Amino acid sequence: MKLASLKTDHPDGKLIIVSRDQARFVAATDIAPTMQFALENWSTCSEGLNKKYQSLNDGTEQASEPFDSQLLCAPLPRSWQWLDGSLFLNHGHLMQQAFHLDPIADADKYPLVYQGAGDSFLAAKDDIVVADLKHGIDFEGEFGVIVDAIPMGSSAAFALSKIRLVVLLNDISYRALGPREMKTGFGFVQAKGATAFAPVALTPDELGEHWQNGRVCLPLQVERNGQLFGQPHGQEMHFGFHELIAHVAQTRPIKAGTVFGSGTVSNADPAKGQACISELRAKEMIQYGTPKTPFMQQDDVVNMNVTDADGHTLFGAIQQRVTVANTREKL
Amino acid sequence: MKLASLKTDHPDGKLIIVSRDQARFVAATDIAPTMQFALENWSTCSEGLNKKYQSLNDGTEQASEPFDSQLLCAPLPRSWQWLDGSLFLNHGHLMQQAFHLDPIADADKYPLVYQGAGDSFLAAKDDIVVADLKHGIDFEGEFGVIVDAIPMGSSAAFALSKIRLVVLLNDISYRALGPREMKTGFGFVQAKGATAFAPVALTPDELGEHWQNGRVCLPLQVERNGQLFGQPHGQEMHFGFHELIAHVAQTRPIKAGTVFGSGTVSNADPAKGQACISELRAKEMIQYGTPKTPFMQQDDVVNMNVTDADGHTLFGAIQQRVTVANTREKL
Repeated sequence: MKLASLKTDHPDGKLIIVSRDQARFVAATDIAPTMQFALENWSTCSEGLNKKYQSLNDGTEQASEPFDSQLLCAPLPRSWQWLDGSLFLNHGHLMQQAFHLDPIADADKYPLVYQGAGDSFLAAKDDIVVADLKHGIDFEGEFGVIVDAIPMGSSAAFALSKIRLVVLLNDISYRALGPREMKTGFGFVQAKGATAFAPVALTPDELGEHWQNGRVCLPLQVERNGQLFGQPHGQEMHFGFHELIAHVAQTRPIKAGTVFGSGTVSNADPAKGQACISELRAKEMIQYGTPKTPFMQQDDVVNMNVTDADGHTLFGAIQQRVTVANTREKL
Repeated sequence: MKLASLKTDHPDGKLIIVSRDQARFVAATDIAPTMQFALENWSTCSEGLNKKYQSLNDGTEQASEPFDSQLLCAPLPRSWQWLDGSLFLNHGHLMQQAFHLDPIADADKYPLVYQGAGDSFLAAKDDIVVADLKHGIDFEGEFGVIVDAIPMGSSAAFALSKIRLVVLLNDISYRALGPREMKTGFGFVQAKGATAFAPVALTPDELGEHWQNGRVCLPLQVERNGQLFGQPHGQEMHFGFHELIAHVAQTRPIKAGTVFGSGTVSNADPAKGQACISELRAKEMIQYGTPKTPFMQQDDVVNMNVTDADGHTLFGAIQQRVTVANTREKL
C-alpha cells in the first residue's frame, strides 16, 4: 500500500491513498482523516485503506484524481518522536579515519541514535532554508520506518511486526556545528535542520523481496545539481530497523507514529559513491589530505530517488534547493 | 495566571484555570480546549483566560469547582519538542571531579542541551515505571518554560518575551546508561525516562520578583522518602532560559508549545543539598572515594515542591513512586 498526505491548512494534512504507479490518488477521509490517525488505529483502518488501494490499482475507484506530488506534505507531516540512527558503520569509519577521531566504542553492538526535531517535517520539494551557509550545509540520504505502538521491553522480532511504513528521507545537517555538539556528549541540536521526506510512504510488503530483515535492500540514488553523487545500497545497514527500535524501547514505550531513521546510507565499495557530502569530503581528506568538495551553496539542489527494477520511483523523488533565511532584520 | 490540564480520554487533556491559592478551578473550554491550543493562539486566548483567572480569585466565577490535583495530567500533557538543558554548571563540575572526566569544553559559553521524548509527559503523581532497577534510577529537579512560536535567528531578548509559562519538572534519568550514550556523542536516549511535571504552570508574572533574567529565583525543595534531600536555588543558573532558547533557535524555528528545561538545579554551597542522587554520589566519591547513597529502589518516593515566602506551593507538588514494569512476559 502507498500512502501520502495532502497539504491543508492543518499541520497534519489529509491522508490519501496513492496508486502503485503513482498516477492517481483517492482521499482516505472516510477511513482516517490523517496519517497519525491511521497509525493510531491501524488494526481498524488498514483493511479499509487496502481495499481502496486495490480498487485504485484496478481502476475501479470512482473518486480518484490525478496524483500531483506538488500538493503533498511529508507522508507523516509531524511526529511526536523522531529518532535518527547511524546504522551504516562504513560512514563512521570513514569519518574517524579522515578526522583522526577515536572510534565510537561498541558502535557495532549498540545502535547509535539521537532524538531529532519531529515538530515540522519538510515536504519532498520544500526549500532547505538555512540560517548561514557557513554552517556547512549537507544532506543525508536515509531510509526510515514509521511504527505502531510498541511496549517498553519489546523484542526486535516483535518490533519488526509493528513497522507499518517505510519512507525515504533527507536528514539535513549542519557540519560546522556537529563536532562541538558531539564533543559535549549531549548530541545534535543546532547541527540538524528540519528533515524532509519523499512524498509517498510504503507498507513493507510493497517492497517485496527488497524488504529483508528490517532493511530496505535497494540503492538510494543521490544527485547534486543534476550530477550523480552516489547510489549506496541499503543492504549494508549493520542493524535492522527492528534492532534500533528494540534498543530504544528498552527503557521507553513507543507511541504509534514514531519515526526511526537509518542514518546516511553508506557502502564500503567506493564505486557506490555516497549519500552525503561530508562522506565524500572524508574520502578526499584520506586521499589528498584536504577536502575538495564544498558543502551546499545558495541555490544548490539535491535529488534523492529509489527505483524498482523497471526504473519506476518507489517513494517519489526528493528535490530540494538551498536558500538562506532572511534573518538580517534580527528580532 | 495559573493553568493546568484535566485528565480526559484524549492525550492532550482539557485546559483549566486554577485559582492563585489552588483551592478552585474552572474549565477554559470556551476559550481554549487544550493547553496546546492556548499556546498556539496566545494572543487571542490570554485575555479571556486572564479574566476568568481574576474572577476565580475574586470568588465571582460561578462555574468554579474544588481543585484536586489528582485529576490532572501534566500542564502540557505532551509536546512536539522537549529540549532539556544542563545550565547549572556546578552539577557538571562535581560530576567531572568525581568521575575524573575531562571538562566539557565551552560549557560556560554554549548551553548544553539534548532533545528528549515529549510524546507523553507524566503527571505529578504518576509512578516512575522502570524497566530495571539496575539502570540506576535517579530524579532531577528542574525548572522549565513553555514558549510561544519563535522564529529562527531570534535574539535572547526576543525569546524572553515569548516565554508563556514556567513549570517544575522531574527529569527521570537512568544513570547506568548515561555514560555510554554520552561517550558516543549522540546524547541521551535510553538514559532518560518520561519527564514528570508539577500540576500547575505559571505565567512568569505570577512569580513576581522571583522571575529574574529568565531564571526562577527560588529554592526547589526535594525530598527522598520523606527526608530532605536538597533545596538548591534557581538563581545560580549559568544561562537564562532565554539564552538557551536563542541558542537552539539559531538554526531552527521554534513552534508554540515547545518545552525547555534548566537541567538539575545545583548550587555551589554544599549546605543546599542537591536535586538529584547522582550529585550526592559525586560528592561522596570526592569525599570518601566511593558513592554511598543508592539510586532509587522499588517503592522509593521522591517529592519536589517550590513555595512562596508564606510556604504556599506555587506549582503544586511532584510526588512519584518507583515501580518496576512487568516485562517478564517478553513480547
